[in-house]
Amino acid sequence: MSFPSVEDQLDLIAKGAAEILPLEALKERISQSIASGKPMRIKAGFDPTAPDLHLGHTVLIRKLRHFQKLGHTVIFLIGDSTALIGDPTGRNVTRKPLTPEQISVNAETYKEQVFKILDPIKTEVRYNSEWLDKLSYYDLVKLLGQFTVSQMLEREEFHKRFNDEQPIGLHEMIYPIAQGYDSVALQCDVELGGTDQKFNLMRGRDLQKHFGQPQQIILMNPILEGLDGVQKMSKSLNNAIGIHEPPFEMYGKLMSISDDLMWRYWTLLTDLRQSEIAQMQADVASGALHPMQAKKNLAHSITTDFHSKAEADSAADNWAKQFQQRGVSEDVPVIKVALTEEGLTTPTEDGTTTIKIAKLLHLAGLAASTGEANRKIAENAVSINGEKFSGKTASLHQLTQSPILRLGKKSIRVEWLQ
Amino acid sequence: MSFPSVEDQLDLIAKGAAEILPLEALKERISQSIASGKPMRIKAGFDPTAPDLHLGHTVLIRKLRHFQKLGHTVIFLIGDSTALIGDPTGRNVTRKPLTPEQISVNAETYKEQVFKILDPIKTEVRYNSEWLDKLSYYDLVKLLGQFTVSQMLEREEFHKRFNDEQPIGLHEMIYPIAQGYDSVALQCDVELGGTDQKFNLMRGRDLQKHFGQPQQIILMNPILEGLDGVQKMSKSLNNAIGIHEPPFEMYGKLMSISDDLMWRYWTLLTDLRQSEIAQMQADVASGALHPMQAKKNLAHSITTDFHSKAEADSAADNWAKQFQQRGVSEDVPVIKVALTEEGLTTPTEDGTTTIKIAKLLHLAGLAASTGEANRKIAENAVSINGEKFSGKTASLHQLTQSPILRLGKKSIRVEWLQ
Repeated sequence: MSFPSVEDQLDLIAKGAAEILPLEALKERISQSIASGKPMRIKAGFDPTAPDLHLGHTVLIRKLRHFQKLGHTVIFLIGDSTALIGDPTGRNVTRKPLTPEQISVNAETYKEQVFKILDPIKTEVRYNSEWLDKLSYYDLVKLLGQFTVSQMLEREEFHKRFNDEQPIGLHEMIYPIAQGYDSVALQCDVELGGTDQKFNLMRGRDLQKHFGQPQQIILMNPILEGLDGVQKMSKSLNNAIGIHEPPFEMYGKLMSISDDLMWRYWTLLTDLRQSEIAQMQADVASGALHPMQAKKNLAHSITTDFHSKAEADSAADNWAKQFQQRGVSEDVPVIKVALTEEGLTTPTEDGTTTIKIAKLLHLAGLAASTGEANRKIAENAVSINGEKFSGKTASLHQLTQSPILRLGKKSIRVEWLQ
Repeated sequence: MSFPSVEDQLDLIAKGAAEILPLEALKERISQSIASGKPMRIKAGFDPTAPDLHLGHTVLIRKLRHFQKLGHTVIFLIGDSTALIGDPTGRNVTRKPLTPEQISVNAETYKEQVFKILDPIKTEVRYNSEWLDKLSYYDLVKLLGQFTVSQMLEREEFHKRFNDEQPIGLHEMIYPIAQGYDSVALQCDVELGGTDQKFNLMRGRDLQKHFGQPQQIILMNPILEGLDGVQKMSKSLNNAIGIHEPPFEMYGKLMSISDDLMWRYWTLLTDLRQSEIAQMQADVASGALHPMQAKKNLAHSITTDFHSKAEADSAADNWAKQFQQRGVSEDVPVIKVALTEEGLTTPTEDGTTTIKIAKLLHLAGLAASTGEANRKIAENAVSINGEKFSGKTASLHQLTQSPILRLGKKSIRVEWLQ
């Protein structure tokens, strides 16, 4: 088969990627693929532990789609055997292993969701039990013998737990090695993962070298920020958009993000080339395109991906109507407010941020003082995003990334400065 | 079947043992065995890595024999699968794993040697490949999950290597766990090992508990000192007596040990009860038994074990003849010399001790000064163990533990004080 040029492929592949290691090897591998007419084999592994995907999970799956669009073989690897261990990434406790039954159910749910982005016909779906379950005691001893305890403890999560005297189950050390062995079994050219996966991704290179295979290139995707624009998108932080959310909720949540975050989402959550996004940014800067319109386009694009164009159209209409009913124009003036302003936030234990609304009204120029702002709140004269506000504080999540404040007849849209 | 009483069994079992953990549990287990008429299951594992046994190795095998004599079931476990890892005990480098072919040859040689001490009919010979090779990836993950990295690093050898930044192969961590799992598979009541094996022996208790079995009692044997009476008996230190050595060499080497070491050898290398050894010591103390005769009895007993009574008789005769031919009486006076005497020894890199003979002759009272001693050596007037000496130094191993020095007509036997 025939492939696009190296430059053209790299343009799409590298878009939004946090790190490609080694980049030169990737160029060479693409050249070889063009010369031989043989597609590259691209792997991404998924623990069937969290089958309810949000947009944060789709960054990597979309990167798989880019490879797929370029004609390469994408392997959606379900880590049914590694899930019996549980990768300790980002956690400082040992995970409870899943039962085989849970894994089987989760894997099906996973596939159903992933095929909203990937082409099921062109995707090689594999389970690592296929080769891991065939490993004998001796095979495993030899695999483990390729690594030392100190090497494993270099992994940040292990290192931290070790230094904090938190237990590290010996079985957890198998995880990165099993993941590396997956690349050997699948003869991968490229493996994708998050930046927090670097240690594990590198083990694939080690083991492929040991088994005399060309070493895979690793491509790490950045972590997607949630609606607050600060923390990693995560259901538990209440800043996520699930891919199963109804069109209107999805569209509305996307409309609440800041302009800065919008550009990041364009890069990580759409298939647009970076040059097209740059053109859009230029149009916004020159005034040829209103940022609100750019955001509507983004919300429409993502909603279409997970539902349909018709549903996205309808969500956009409903959203615009509701917005008008609440009596706020789309074109309210914008003021940037730093979250670090003294007296604006109060710390909470769960890592969320709580905003003092009276102080915010004052900083936004709607009230001469926090005292006046408090009186106005008591007089029922304040609304946020079109809804009456009567309390003292609101969490940053409740406010959304770009809340519209109204006091009397004056409205203003706030964008947070981090 | 009927067994001797708890006290009688313990008398033989505990003889010479360095540590029994927990001792109370052993008493109870023996009682249960007597009550039920069911023999206890006693395991000792052997890596088929060093099939050329010396007396140091026989201490543990003799302890197995004691259990066997008492009617219990002795399991001679050949660690054919664990040998694929190589236990790192006492070494600070990762061992090179043996090939299955080497293991098979070594195992046969091992059995042949061990059955000089154990009754082959009554011994259960097992290979741990029987159950280890059946472990699946998932089984192994679950086994490893019973332990943490920190627990493993508590093992002295691992700890030391970790702190010294010496590599520890990840596969080496499997060793103690596999050894522990052997006890589960064999349903052991007691496991024997050296004192340096404590960590591994305890893992058997952990895993038996996990699998709902009664926890084994562990019996640790002391390390046997070599002919020098100081360092562990070891072929590489040249202070060992191999069980394949001809009768005359074996007998002669045993006759060269110090009186102190002789009592230790009586305890660890014969089946005599401790009370019988104590009686012999009392007889020597009272003058009823000459220490040289006690030593001859020991040398005869051990030589008989590995050869035959007739061969031991003949070795004793030859040794006595040669001793007389060399012109030294068996009854030369004895002087104790401390190895720490200033100027007596020179340090060497390989851990052996080199003795300055002129200084020794002076300390032994045979020469008025080291200068005089050196002149006498030059005049060819000095002999050691009946052989002319013409050099400046000799290694402690060459001198043996109890050398007889002669200068002119005066002889003296030296015993080293540690």
